[in-house]
Amino acid sequence: MAKRRITKQISVGGVKIGGRDNPVIVQSMTTGDTRDVKTSIAEIKTLEDEGCEIIRVAVPDMEAADAIPAIKSGINIPLIADIHFHYELALASVKNGVDGLRLNPGNIRDADKVREITEAAKKAQIPIRIGVNFGSLPPVGKIGASRGGRRVVDGVNDLPTIAEAIARGDDDAYTVVDHMVATALWEISVLEDLDFDDIKISLKAFDVETTVEAYRKLAPLVPYPFHLGITESGTVTTGSIRSSVGLGVLLYDGLGDTIRVSLAGDSREEVKTGYEILKSLKLRDKGPIMIACPSCGRADVDVLALTNSVEKFIKEVKTPLKIAVMGCEVNGPGEAKDADIGIAGGNGRAVIFRKGAKTKIVAEADMLDALMQEVRAAEAEMAESQA
Amino acid sequence: MAKRRITKQISVGGVKIGGRDNPVIVQSMTTGDTRDVKTSIAEIKTLEDEGCEIIRVAVPDMEAADAIPAIKSGINIPLIADIHFHYELALASVKNGVDGLRLNPGNIRDADKVREITEAAKKAQIPIRIGVNFGSLPPVGKIGASRGGRRVVDGVNDLPTIAEAIARGDDDAYTVVDHMVATALWEISVLEDLDFDDIKISLKAFDVETTVEAYRKLAPLVPYPFHLGITESGTVTTGSIRSSVGLGVLLYDGLGDTIRVSLAGDSREEVKTGYEILKSLKLRDKGPIMIACPSCGRADVDVLALTNSVEKFIKEVKTPLKIAVMGCEVNGPGEAKDADIGIAGGNGRAVIFRKGAKTKIVAEADMLDALMQEVRAAEAEMAESQA
Repeated sequence: MAKRRITKQISVGGVKIGGRDNPVIVQSMTTGDTRDVKTSIAEIKTLEDEGCEIIRVAVPDMEAADAIPAIKSGINIPLIADIHFHYELALASVKNGVDGLRLNPGNIRDADKVREITEAAKKAQIPIRIGVNFGSLPPVGKIGASRGGRRVVDGVNDLPTIAEAIARGDDDAYTVVDHMVATALWEISVLEDLDFDDIKISLKAFDVETTVEAYRKLAPLVPYPFHLGITESGTVTTGSIRSSVGLGVLLYDGLGDTIRVSLAGDSREEVKTGYEILKSLKLRDKGPIMIACPSCGRADVDVLALTNSVEKFIKEVKTPLKIAVMGCEVNGPGEAKDADIGIAGGNGRAVIFRKGAKTKIVAEADMLDALMQEVRAAEAEMAESQA
Repeated sequence: MAKRRITKQISVGGVKIGGRDNPVIVQSMTTGDTRDVKTSIAEIKTLEDEGCEIIRVAVPDMEAADAIPAIKSGINIPLIADIHFHYELALASVKNGVDGLRLNPGNIRDADKVREITEAAKKAQIPIRIGVNFGSLPPVGKIGASRGGRRVVDGVNDLPTIAEAIARGDDDAYTVVDHMVATALWEISVLEDLDFDDIKISLKAFDVETTVEAYRKLAPLVPYPFHLGITESGTVTTGSIRSSVGLGVLLYDGLGDTIRVSLAGDSREEVKTGYEILKSLKLRDKGPIMIACPSCGRADVDVLALTNSVEKFIKEVKTPLKIAVMGCEVNGPGEAKDADIGIAGGNGRAVIFRKGAKTKIVAEADMLDALMQEVRAAEAEMAESQA
């Protein structure tokens, strides 16, 4: 696995993102109406319970911006305001105590208004995330036009549109990846020109390859931390898989300082999926990890039933234990031995392991109890060693 | 995304794996008792319905080996026998018409018995998968011992055990990845020495990084196709995420000719997850892909309800359409335009897109009907163009 990319550290309401040693931060966005303070707080509290570390809310109008102080007073994690076209909503959000802005200066257009926003953000010490999305890219010829023709990427406006390049089969075509990166560089330059560098970047698309290649291409060009995501990735079932593939590839490459898994569904699933992705790459610890045998014609115990029981049980476990549930003598003992606690069943009995050593052999009927005792004992030991 | 690694093509009961242009094949393993023919066939039929292309069954005893002809007569996809220690079960499986073996010659030990198996497999033209698993690796000093001391990797036996190397903090330690690769090379050499090269390889661990690095390290050393998997990866919820990350990284690298997602749960979920992983990297088409807005305080329609309705509806759709369900005017139209069919809602009405062009604007109440009409029209067109 590649070493993490070292980035400029920023702070969103005290939560540090990027830098050299900070963990990859898990964030989400509310699905409800921001103006409904009570519902917003309730949703955010459930997300906090899942370990959500930063929350974003859409701010489509002034009523939403004005709900910020009340929402903030009811929650414990930093709040980011998602702004699209209206600079006055950005200013109002900052005034109302938001911890971060998600805003593309290119959408604001007027240079003086962008200056006003960056000055307010600088004074309040809140970062701005530039979020380049495949679905809302500016036309190729329009990058930088509103900045008086200034170009970050030389000759961008002389290049064909993506459609033109594809139509003529040009191998050196300016691709959508190039355009996402060029757009990000232009948006960044707008803020940098105003002496603002408290920046975080995202480059999202639904297409995994487009997303991955855009982040890879931008990575060596800027020092800013990356917020990773696959846009509109789908429902909890399909979107979590697509997001795991895309974010997995990037994180394995050492890219990514904070992640948001976009799922059409209960927002808690975004946070759960985010942690599972990070846990699979050992980038975060959060509760137990379960190694579970998929069962086959070789399993002597009803390993799927045992797995389900163990899964329910470990929902209450907060310690980052690696727990293995195995069904037979083939791979079971080997993988179970590698775990903090393991159980391998077979022939009417079960072997319980602790850090590679067999601790007991119990009858099949008692194995769940025995496993639970072992978990509790391991937890007590860990608590003691930390005391 | 890296170009696919070109491998030696093998054929499992007519399903081609590896080579230059074959698709990545999706396979699974039954969870039930192989000896129960009726249940085995029933399980495999449900997997076929999900698109499973090869099925594996555990063969732990002679009764299981003898069930093979009856199972084969009731199913339509190739059948692989999973053998562990007993060479007579491998021979019986071949005799009983199995389409492939999963077997580690190192576990068989006796050279004459391995020879007998390879001769039978060669005669029957069935390939052998060597499956190196983290949980059942031979001790470091034992690689090759049963082959009269022959070494594939020079000096392997002079190296410390992994535990010893870790204990003394040796940076040049022979790692578990090295040992998995060395074990695979040794197992391969056993077959190659018998002039058998109808081989497929897997190198599985629960740990994503171990798995990825093992496949990466072996890839340039052998021409054989890779069967990818993350062992014992967990339940449908957590295991699908861990598998998506691990297999995603490898597939993005161009590695992998067939995949099996190991999940503790309904085996159909393994097949569904497998296809979703491949679809996210455009390596396979299978039914529609849904781009779904995660909804936020900006959505004017109940996009989650609409998404759920559309998801249920598209279960019946077999054509590989890209369908976008969007909630607002910000990213919605952009992503929806990129889809074959899209819907973007807002302000009590919805815009329907077809390949980037608006086809109609309908009232919110009629939008699902309008979307479905569009899908049916697109399907009819596709069917016509293929006729």
